[in-house]
Parts: sequence; C-alpha cells; structure tokens
Amino acid sequence: MGKAHSNAWRNVAAFYPDVPPVRMQVLVGRDADAVGQAARRYGWAEAATDWRAVVERDDIDIVDVCTPGHLHAEVALAALAAGKHVIVEKPLANTVAESEALVEAARQEGAGRTMLAHNYRRVPALALARSLVAEGRIGRVREVRLAYLQDWLADDAAPMTWRLRKETAGSGALGDLGSHAVDQLHAILGEPVTSVRGELRTFVPRRPGPDGPEEVTVDDAAWATLHTASGVVASLEVSRVATGRKNALQVEVYGTSGSLRFDLERLNELVLHESTGSATDGPKQILVTEPEHPYVDAWWPPGHTLGWDSTFTAQAADLLRAITGGGELLPSFADGLSVQRVLAAIEASHAAGGVTTPTGNEETLDACPPTAYP
Amino acid sequence: MGKAHSNAWRNVAAFYPDVPPVRMQVLVGRDADAVGQAARRYGWAEAATDWRAVVERDDIDIVDVCTPGHLHAEVALAALAAGKHVIVEKPLANTVAESEALVEAARQEGAGRTMLAHNYRRVPALALARSLVAEGRIGRVREVRLAYLQDWLADDAAPMTWRLRKETAGSGALGDLGSHAVDQLHAILGEPVTSVRGELRTFVPRRPGPDGPEEVTVDDAAWATLHTASGVVASLEVSRVATGRKNALQVEVYGTSGSLRFDLERLNELVLHESTGSATDGPKQILVTEPEHPYVDAWWPPGHTLGWDSTFTAQAADLLRAITGGGELLPSFADGLSVQRVLAAIEASHAAGGVTTPTGNEETLDACPPTAYP
Amino acid sequence: MGKAHSNAWRNVAAFYPDVPPVRMQVLVGRDADAVGQAARRYGWAEAATDWRAVVERDDIDIVDVCTPGHLHAEVALAALAAGKHVIVEKPLANTVAESEALVEAARQEGAGRTMLAHNYRRVPALALARSLVAEGRIGRVREVRLAYLQDWLADDAAPMTWRLRKETAGSGALGDLGSHAVDQLHAILGEPVTSVRGELRTFVPRRPGPDGPEEVTVDDAAWATLHTASGVVASLEVSRVATGRKNALQVEVYGTSGSLRFDLERLNELVLHESTGSATDGPKQILVTEPEHPYVDAWWPPGHTLGWDSTFTAQAADLLRAITGGGELLPSFADGLSVQRVLAAIEASHAAGGVTTPTGNEETLDACPPTAYP
Amino acid sequence: MGKAHSNAWRNVAAFYPDVPPVRMQVLVGRDADAVGQAARRYGWAEAATDWRAVVERDDIDIVDVCTPGHLHAEVALAALAAGKHVIVEKPLANTVAESEALVEAARQEGAGRTMLAHNYRRVPALALARSLVAEGRIGRVREVRLAYLQDWLADDAAPMTWRLRKETAGSGALGDLGSHAVDQLHAILGEPVTSVRGELRTFVPRRPGPDGPEEVTVDDAAWATLHTASGVVASLEVSRVATGRKNALQVEVYGTSGSLRFDLERLNELVLHESTGSATDGPKQILVTEPEHPYVDAWWPPGHTLGWDSTFTAQAADLLRAITGGGELLPSFADGLSVQRVLAAIEASHAAGGVTTPTGNEETLDACPPTAYP
Repeated sequence: MGKAHSNAWRNVAAFYPDVPPVRMQVLVGRDADAVGQAARRYGWAEAATDWRAVVERDDIDIVDVCTPGHLHAEVALAALAAGKHVIVEKPLANTVAESEALVEAARQEGAGRTMLAHNYRRVPALALARSLVAEGRIGRVREVRLAYLQDWLADDAAPMTWRLRKETAGSGALGDLGSHAVDQLHAILGEPVTSVRGELRTFVPRRPGPDGPEEVTVDDAAWATLHTASGVVASLEVSRVATGRKNALQVEVYGTSGSLRFDLERLNELVLHESTGSATDGPKQILVTEPEHPYVDAWWPPGHTLGWDSTFTAQAADLLRAITGGGELLPSFADGLSVQRVLAAIEASHAAGGVTTPTGNEETLDACPPTAYP
Repeated sequence: MGKAHSNAWRNVAAFYPDVPPVRMQVLVGRDADAVGQAARRYGWAEAATDWRAVVERDDIDIVDVCTPGHLHAEVALAALAAGKHVIVEKPLANTVAESEALVEAARQEGAGRTMLAHNYRRVPALALARSLVAEGRIGRVREVRLAYLQDWLADDAAPMTWRLRKETAGSGALGDLGSHAVDQLHAILGEPVTSVRGELRTFVPRRPGPDGPEEVTVDDAAWATLHTASGVVASLEVSRVATGRKNALQVEVYGTSGSLRFDLERLNELVLHESTGSATDGPKQILVTEPEHPYVDAWWPPGHTLGWDSTFTAQAADLLRAITGGGELLPSFADGLSVQRVLAAIEASHAAGGVTTPTGNEETLDACPPTAYP
Repeated sequence: MGKAHSNAWRNVAAFYPDVPPVRMQVLVGRDADAVGQAARRYGWAEAATDWRAVVERDDIDIVDVCTPGHLHAEVALAALAAGKHVIVEKPLANTVAESEALVEAARQEGAGRTMLAHNYRRVPALALARSLVAEGRIGRVREVRLAYLQDWLADDAAPMTWRLRKETAGSGALGDLGSHAVDQLHAILGEPVTSVRGELRTFVPRRPGPDGPEEVTVDDAAWATLHTASGVVASLEVSRVATGRKNALQVEVYGTSGSLRFDLERLNELVLHESTGSATDGPKQILVTEPEHPYVDAWWPPGHTLGWDSTFTAQAADLLRAITGGGELLPSFADGLSVQRVLAAIEASHAAGGVTTPTGNEETLDACPPTAYP
Repeated sequence: MGKAHSNAWRNVAAFYPDVPPVRMQVLVGRDADAVGQAARRYGWAEAATDWRAVVERDDIDIVDVCTPGHLHAEVALAALAAGKHVIVEKPLANTVAESEALVEAARQEGAGRTMLAHNYRRVPALALARSLVAEGRIGRVREVRLAYLQDWLADDAAPMTWRLRKETAGSGALGDLGSHAVDQLHAILGEPVTSVRGELRTFVPRRPGPDGPEEVTVDDAAWATLHTASGVVASLEVSRVATGRKNALQVEVYGTSGSLRFDLERLNELVLHESTGSATDGPKQILVTEPEHPYVDAWWPPGHTLGWDSTFTAQAADLLRAITGGGELLPSFADGLSVQRVLAAIEASHAAGGVTTPTGNEETLDACPPTAYP
C-alpha cells in the first residue's frame, strides 16, 4: 500500500496540474534501514521511524495512514489532534468503536480535511456507473449483485499470516473485500444498508505456521443479503478461495429500466443495458477511456487503458483540491463507519444462527453419479 | 412446453437411432379446437380433451405431463395407477406433500419408469461440468454460485397472469427458476442441500388485471445460502426483474484446485479453470460441440451449435432407452422432491425473519451524490 | 447435409404453420441399404437410388439437391427440365460455367422456383445485421472484415479425403468457407464484388492416403481484398488450419456512424456499435432471441437460444411460401453465380502472382529471441 | 508522447530499483513558455528550445527523441555523433533512406546504446506470447492475423491535421498503426517479412482545414498479406475509420498445435489455445498479472491490472540496464528499418495495381434488399 500511495503522490502533479504542488517529505516505517531504502526508491525526502514525532512536525500538512488496520485509529487521531489533514487507507479501523472515535474527531471544529482511501471510488468505470444511476439512466434500483472473489488462499497449504488472525486483521474476506463492495453499494445508491442477513465460513481451519499448524481465526468467505430503506436488496459474496478469480470485484446493478455490470479484472470497461423495447436492446460494453469519462481526461488518448494505480493518483488529486479549494471530499470517515457497521451486523447475523432444515432430504436424493449420460 | 416436448418426440429417432421407435399418438388439451390444431401442427396422430380417458388407453405406453404445476400430481398419479411410464415437466409438483405422494407411487412394485423433465440436466456443457466434478478435475468443491436471472417482469406495467398468483403457480421466481438451479446443484455435487438461509421479495406488489390492479402473491426474486453435509456453501439468486438478463441460468463451481462457469445464454460453452501454478493458468472456454462431449455426437459437426430444444430430445432418448433397456433414469421423482424441500425451507427461513440491524447507519452515511467527481 | 435438410422438412410445419404442408416423399442415395436406413431414420416415406427417375415423378414437386458440388448442375438441370422447384445446397456448382448454365435454366419461362441453400442467410443475427445496414443504422459502409476459420485440417496427419482433391471438391477452404463469407458480403451490401486481390496457400502439401502419401490439390487457406462499385473494401481470410477455431464465420461491418460484429460460434448474438458522441457509446451485445427478431418468433421464448439447424428450417419455410405465394426468393441461383465469379477471380489473382519484395530485409532484422525480457 | 516518456523516466526507479538512477535533466520543445510549463509539470530540472545545444551538453547521457517522425533522423544522428545513448520513438523515421542512415550510425564503433521505442514489445501479454511461441507451445506458426483498428477519423467532418499530410506524416494508418503490427510480427516470429501484397485506401479524400477543404494525402486504411522465409502468411488490416474500435491492436497467431490471441483494448489478457485432443480443449484467457509474467513482478499484486503507461516504464528500465550492464537491447534501429521496408513494399505493391475483375458480376447479382425476411 505504501508503494501505491507513494506512486500517487509522486505523479499527481503530472496528471492533475491544477492541484497545488505537494512535497513528499517523510516516509515512516518501523525498520530504519528498510524505510530509508523505500524512501529513496519511492521519492521521499526523508525517512523516519517515530510516527508520533513526524505527525507533530510543523512542516507536515498531510498525514497518509497506510498501517495495518488495528493502528489506523491511533495514528489518525494523533494526526488530527496535531491539526493535520488526514487520509486513511481502508478499512477506516478494525472496530466500530474506533471508527466512531475517528468520525467524532474529524467533526471537531478546526479539524483538517479527512478522507478514507477507498480507491475504487475513483475507478473511472465505477464513477461513471454512479453517475448513470444518479441520472436515472437505469430507472429505480431494485437489486444489486456484489461479489469480490480472489483465490490466494485456495490452496490448503498456503501458510499462516497475520491476515488470518483475528487480533491483527480484525476480519478475513469480509473486512478486506466486503468493505470495498459495501462502500461501492453505498456510493452507488446514496443510502446506507439498514438490515442484513449473513454468514461466514472458514473453509481451511488450520494452516501451516512456523511451529506447526495454527488455527485460522477469520473467515475465508462470507455471504449476505443487504437491505436499504428505499427497498433495494443487494446480495454479497466475498471469498479468498474462489479458484480462478484473481481480483474480481463484481458489481451488477439492476434498475427498473436498465442495468449496469462491472468487473475489476476489466477495470476499463462498464456494461450498460437500457431496456427500450427495441429490437436492438442489449448490454453495451463501454470502454471507459474517453476524455469525457470521469478522471480519464488527465491520462492518455482514447482507447489507451488505465491501470489499478491510476485510482490512487486521482484520489490524491481530490484530497489536494479539497484542502485548498474546500468542498465535499468523499468517501468520508463517516462513510467508513457506515461500512464498518454493516460488516459488524453481518457477523452478528452469522452468530445468531437461524438456518432452516429441509426435513428428509438426506434420504430422498437418489445417488446421482455426475457422469450419468450415455 | 407442449411445443418443446412435441419437438423432442418428433425428432428423437432422427438423432438417436438406437432408441426404440415412438409413435406420437394423442395430444390432450382443454379446448378441442385448439388442441386439434396443435396436434396437426406438432405431428400428433390424435387430439383429445379428456386426459383421464387417454391415460387409461391400452395403446398408450408413455404419459408426458406438461400441465401447470398444480395439476402434475393428479395426472401423474392416475397415469402411474394405469401402469404407464410417466415423465413430468418440472417442478415435480407445487407442494412437498404432492411430491411425496408422487415419489411413493413411483416406488410401487410394477410401476412404470418415471422421470422428471429437468431438461437442463442434458445441456451438454452442464453434463460435462458434472462429469469434470466427478472426476475430481477441480478438486473438492467448496463454493457454488447459482443465479437464474430473467427480466420479463421488470416493467411495473407487465400484466397480471396466473403465474403471479400463489394458488395456481405455487411460487414465483423461487419455484420457477430456483428449482432449476437447485437441481443443478444436487446433480453436480451428488448430495442434497441440508440447511438453508433465505428470503423472498415481491418488488411489484400489484399489477394491472382485466378489472383493475390485482395483488401479486408470489415472489419476484429470492436469495439463499444453501449448505450440504460435506460442507459446501452455495449462494442462490433468482429474479424475474433482473433487467437485461433474458435467460441467464449461471452456475459457478469453485473447487480446491479449479473452477467451472456456465451461463445458459451461451448454452454451448463451458469455462474450466485449473490451477496448476503455471504462468499459463486461466479460465478455458470450451465450445461444447465436439463428438466426445455428452449428447453432442447425435447432432452436428464440431463447432455447429445446438439450441435449447436439443436438451428435450436427449431427455426423450434417455427415457426411451430406460424403458426398453432398464438402468438408472435421472432426474427421478425423488430428485424433484428433494428440490421441493429446499424451496420450502427457503420460504420457511424467510418467514422466520431474523435480519440484523446495523445500528446508527441511517444517520452516519454522508449524502454522497453519485456524480461526485471533477 | 442430408441430415440437416431432412430435419428442416420434418419440422417446418411445426414452427411455421402458415406454410403449405409438405410431404417427405423420397430420399435418394447411391447405396440402397444405406439410403433405406437413412430414409426411415429421418422420416422419408421412400428411398431410391436412381435420382433421374425420381426427379421426373409426377408426385414430386420439389427437388432438394444435397450432393457433392460437382453433381449439383446435372441434377438441378434435370429437375428444372422436369418442371420441378429446385433448391441446391451451396456452392451453386464447382465452376462458373456450370453456375451460368443453372442461372440460365432457372430463368426460362415456366421454370419452377429456385433457391440456393446458403443457410446462413437465415441466421437471425445475420438477418438482423442486414436489416440494420439497410436502415442506415451504421451509416454508409466502408470496410468489412470477413473470416471463416476452422481447424479440422490443422493436424499434418489428418488423412486425405475427396475434399482435398481438386477434381471432386473444386476448391478447398476458398470454395467451402469463402463462398459463405462472400455471400454474406453481397447480402449485407446489396451489391456485388467487382474487383479482387487474393492468394491461396496449401500449408500441408501431402497427406496420408490409403496407399501412402497423396498430394493435396486444393488450398488450406486463402486471403483476399474485395472491392465493390460503391467503394467498400472487404478483407477475407478463410482457413481450415486455424487451430482453436471450430466454425468461426466472423463478419464485421464498419460504417460511417456505426459497426456490426458477428461470430457463428455465438450464433444467437449480434454486436452493434453506434457512434453518437455520448459517454455511453460502446458495442452492444444483442441476444437475438426476441420475437421481433427475424425468424425467431417461430421458435422459443426470449432468451432460449436457437441451434445451427434452425437456419435450414427457416430456409425451407421461405421456399414453401414462395412456391405458393410468389414473391422474391433469396438467395437466387444468380446470387450463387456471383459468388462463384468472385472465388474464380481470387484464384486468378493468385495465379497472376505479383508480390512485392522489401529489399534487404533478410539481412537487417536482428535475431530477436522471443524470450527477450528480464 | 512526451508525457508518456516523462512518466516512464519519473517512475522507473520506483518500479525497477535495480536500474541505475536517472536524472530528468532537460526537456526540449519549440515554444519556450510551453516547454517550461511542461518541464515543471512532468518533473524535468530544466527546459530548453535549442535541441542542438542540448544534445552536445556534457551532462547529458541519454537523448530520448519524441519529435514527429520527419525529424527523428536529424536529431538522433546528431545525438549519436555527440556520443550519446539514443532512444527514438517509433517509427524509426519516415523513409527507408533515413532509417538506413540511422542503422549505419548506430553501428559505428563507439556509438552509444540505441533503442527503438516500440513500447508494445513490453506489454506483458505480448511478451508472454513471444515466449510461448519460442518455447513451441503452439507448434510451428502458419498463419498470423494482425489488425490495428481505431476510429478517430471515422467522421467525415474530422478536421485536417499534419498527420493527414504526406510531407509531415509520411504515411497514414499504414505507418502509424501498421508499424506496430509488423514489429509485433517480426518479434513473435523472429524472422522478417520477405514479400508482400498490399493496398491502401483513403476513404475521406478531403477534410475541413482552416481555409476550406484540404486534400488528405495519406491512407485511412491499409490491407496486406505478408510472407516470411519459413512460409508463414500474415494478414494485416489497419484503419483509422473502424467505427467502434478505439485502440484495437489485435494479434492472432495460429500454429500447428495451438494458437494465441491478443487485443490491446484488454491489455492485461492473453488467450492461449492448445490442441491436445481432449474434451476440455479450448481457448484459455490468461490474466497476465502474476509475478512470473514478464515485467509484472515490478508492479502490483496478482489481479491488479497494469495500464498502457507501464510499457514505457519497462522500456526505460531495459535501456538503463543495457547502458550499464551491456547485453542485447531490443527493438534495435535495425528492427525499425526492417519494419520500414515492409511498409514501403506495401505501398509499392499498391502502386503496382494488379486487381482482378470477376467478369459479369454487376449484372448477375439480384437486388437483395437486406430486409428480406418475413
């Protein structure tokens, strides 16, 4: 994440010349040697290991928090207390309580500008999708299908890491991937989820650690249905064991007169269907690389595709603009809290149990060998 | 459905010359004129309106039940009582109780051969998928993603029909579309669903009838998670209001070492991913039109695609083969009962309520106008 | 081909009840046993081996010529002389001279109705494409990209057959596949090709025969550019050694304000792009299964896909309608002659040679091992 | 192009820390104000307008030539004469003669390192394709299908620019787009084109200029077949009027046992088909974002896609490595000359004429209104 954020700061002026100039001053890390090397590589003027000292320096205006989630709150609160502008990598924090504290701090009078780094808000295709929904191009939204599928844990032998322990990671696929999906839902609908039904599953309960097998204490996958006040139902499926999917954040939005589809593995494309009753209705695959598409004008000629990193650069530009120019800056810490509450509710729903059993099914299904064709 | 089944009987001998010859004897309907015309058009020797008389005729060996679901049980039970072979269009019946009665009757000594007409079992790509799972080509299955999406009810102004009344249709999208998806799941896994979490939604509660607005008493869409004894979790989403989807039965199967994907709108294609750790891993799009593919050899040269109707012809062939040659005949009535129980459990789960509320969410989401990009 | 045409006659009344009833009277073949068996299987009342006798029978109204190409002219001319309606499988004949004779005979006063069985004219998606071009939906056509790619001869060890000998087959990929592509071009543009530049290649010059290697005397692949009077340029590539392509007739039409794309491996889909200058322009993938699409209404509900065979049934319906109702019947024998002339011109262009050599190239290219990346 | 090259120099150290550090010293342009502004924006230390002075400065080691093509030779020759390392944006030059002079100069003893900036050589998917061909994964190559389709000139009203005048642009779509395609062909095959058949077309002969309509003196589109010594045939189609295509460099390579497909509009994907005779053969869509893929390891985690700009950064890294570490550096000036010769041969082939006329075609095609379906 440090690499991606550094890349954004290093390039923001080249792509968005209207934003105020930014100086890449200090990169902070735990290991002096490593952070020194990274600072040189990524273009920072200095390196440091004491974040507390750095966030109080007078020559620092913006603090960009890219630590693991359980440290977000502490660093960001200190930075806000020191009067800095603060951007925090998602998720806002690992708990609802910490998230609430951050929202509270961000609302204090005189606080700097704050932003949550849900970089996918600035995928041009997803920004275009939001815009089309807002314009009513697909009518009133009824159903949303959300999935975020990866497969880096599909192999039972993949080793234990801090990401698989609840105390450090907070959550598994649900927090890591589900937070992106729920944030997209909120952004597209402009309203939050108000009730959920959900469940979690850890398919591989133990993984090899340095001293033998260790227990995995977070989920490998999660499923939910999400409801909003206006009556939308969204389905959600996130997984780190979906073999063959590498980074498939999939968003499908079904409205009364049209629909939208997106898959992050094809970041530059958006599919739009509009029902007009004509014989030429059909899903239209928009290559989102035209100057009139959101964020694209800053980059390359039409048809020249953007990479994943471009979303961070656009994010940095919007933060810089808001600092000098004012105006709304999204997603906010409150947006992050809202997502965190939905994830917590999914975990609560899972804990509440409540599955229903179709009686007698074990006995009645004929053994059906899947090869039963001539 | 009568048209599709007639097409199968008319053509089965031409494609499958090994099956015993079949004579298309009597087409039964309610309106004498209409059924006479249809009989001529579709190639039946006679037409009739009294199904009870027909099922008892000595020159009738096979009864093919294509009525609406609430009549399936009555007709099929009479036919079985008369010693006939019986094939019933899916769903087996509208209720679990009727389904149980049919399974019971089919198990009586001396009963004819029985078959449930889940025609999608004989989509070559889906039969190939079953075969690959059985061979272990994708390892042990963990997750399945099932969806069946249509949009013929997306328009609020689409008129009331018998399909939207519980007393005639039994169920909405759940029964009509969900039954196909759950049957595929059972067939692919070779084990039944043993617990569920689910919910239903009627997005358009009233639709125009001949005498003014009428209440819709079935669901427009349904969602569920389905669990099996071996630990598989399947997600299910069915909808008749998924704008832009015409007939999208989508099946994705994620195993420990590979995955499969299918979409009925591309009936001749199956996607197979195998994780081998090589730089050339990726989802492979198989055009299922080769002679070695299930059912295909009977049809056209490689690359010459099959239509939806071909699945009914293959189904008819398998029934005829079983009648004369014996052997297993799937899907069975018991398979249909098993599906029915899962659908009933989803309805029960919905009725049990149990959603969880993320407290405070209404207040905390910033108003996020979806056009918030520069 | 006999199987596909029989299938059409057997089913035409079921799908197109408006056409006059047709009786499948005599199937003619060379081997009495084989043709008898085929007649029973495919639904013909009789079998025969003497086509001359059959084409003169009073109870025969229509003669459907499905022989290899070098016999088309003889049979069709005799049938026309006997006053029959005649449909000939494509290509019209193996030579321009025979084609001219057939066109001449079809134009005689009192001749029956004649039709060339280019079945792809009745692929709904291609018929829709023609219609959209005619309506001006993509503006004035400038470029067309035509390809017909198969791979059944990709293997050097694939054995010799009559299709690979000039005396029986007339031509290789050019005649077999190119004829379809050129016919589509003519149909879409409504004007013929008037000049060409082309070449042929036999990649596998010898193949195993029963008595050792034999010389292949037709092309494996061919390329051409085709020009029309209005200034359209079409590129053409046909191949039987395009590994991985099974039956890929690909048609792309680029007009001044839009474009169309089609691939026969996805027979039910047509891609339409319309340039409107809007941010939501993009290629639209139309699922051509709606009742308002050409030929589709006769078949299944929306979203239920059609197979390759449906095109022959629609073809039979149009012939029957024209016989009783009059009116235009396309493609005509003259259409077939026109295609034949284009194919002959491509062969002539190839024979004329005329390639240009970039001097010095052998020496100047650095050896570039394709693995040259770090 | 200056923006893309600057982006590469600014970021090369962050992605490829093994390369020697590079200082972005002087940006040269014609307008002092504009170049000063651009220098600040893109991160150059200085700006200048006199390129002759700059290429002779002692503190300059590398000269990166991004001028229009007709100035390439003059600048690059001067830089070479001054002992600099030189990278030239493609095409190498507008004429074969200039290209030869550049190759000659690059071969002088003591000359710096030279490189031609065909950035698409460093698209990971295309580099992987080269590697697979070299390893024999698709057998011996027979056919290649090359296309480069854009549509920015599809509109008749698009205005005149220097790119449409022969004296400044040298060539139209052929030089601009065809050069990329031919370079890919050479790189994939490792052998040059030795004979061609080709033609050009200017569909819009006049376009609006500031003082009224002006004559367009370059091609809008071009077609060719290209032959190599080993017997490969490649087809080529390039166009700037292919409505709906934005930046579609399409490469399809058909070998004796497999094939490859690529489309630049999906830069991160490569399709590989391997014929093994198994029922699960099919084209495999590889998401080229894994660490073991060429150039990818330097960037982001698996599944996180790269943009068009990444190819320039990789190119800069390879140049820097070669300068300090020696070793082969491709593509070379000689590679560029080789491409230039092929383009010149296509123009010569066009000029030689030689189309063949299918006699009689104007008269024989029936008028076929494209709407001729019921």
